[in-house]
Amino acid sequence: MTIDFDKGGGLIPAIAQDANTGAVLMLAWMNREAYEETVRTRRAVYFSRSRNRLWRKGEESGNVQEVREIYIDGDADTILLRVHQVGGAACHEGYQSCFFRSIEGPGGAFKITEPQLETPEQIYGRKK
Amino acid sequence: MTIDFDKGGGLIPAIAQDANTGAVLMLAWMNREAYEETVRTRRAVYFSRSRNRLWRKGEESGNVQEVREIYIDGDADTILLRVHQVGGAACHEGYQSCFFRSIEGPGGAFKITEPQLETPEQIYGRKK
Repeated sequence: MTIDFDKGGGLIPAIAQDANTGAVLMLAWMNREAYEETVRTRRAVYFSRSRNRLWRKGEESGNVQEVREIYIDGDADTILLRVHQVGGAACHEGYQSCFFRSIEGPGGAFKITEPQLETPEQIYGRKK
Repeated sequence: MTIDFDKGGGLIPAIAQDANTGAVLMLAWMNREAYEETVRTRRAVYFSRSRNRLWRKGEESGNVQEVREIYIDGDADTILLRVHQVGGAACHEGYQSCFFRSIEGPGGAFKITEPQLETPEQIYGRKK
């Protein structure tokens, strides 16, 4: 059983879940290189489709994801990471989860369902 | 804010999470039609890439997903469904979650981490 990177043209979806709370934090993408670095370093590494390069989560914000467990689904084309989210906020908009808005009814109105832990300015103004 | 179906060529990833336990059950894909039917009917409808058609989850097995909440991520290109999984097993191989194998170490060996609730024969032998 090997991971099927071909189905998605070299990229597969990777879900990050908080290992303590079970909250789904975000979905990002991995190519083989990102996956292998994640397994090796036990820190989440994704492939940024917009920047077209490896994205070591937290490289700018410091909000790295320490990988506790790695799961693969039945047809080996999706990854699930169970992580410790350093800093609390996985989302670059300062929320714990990127899924901080729920869809209310067929009209598609959104409602923000989480407190904002930090502002983007606080996250990216931080110097390491 | 509208959902961005264009980024993935008409399909966006949709994560199903058990609303009670927090377990990540599966990842599948939605086109606009699948999404709109999901919102309208409150049952998970995906788009099957292999069958190239709408896939009303549970249409053969009876293991439908009753949708409790729908979330959208920051850039509106991934859906998170919080569901009640009828029948207990989301995975067509009879596990609660499709993520029933963990990856152990850099060699990439897998370990099955969940009990199998049913066999595929039991799931698909069931007639409604």
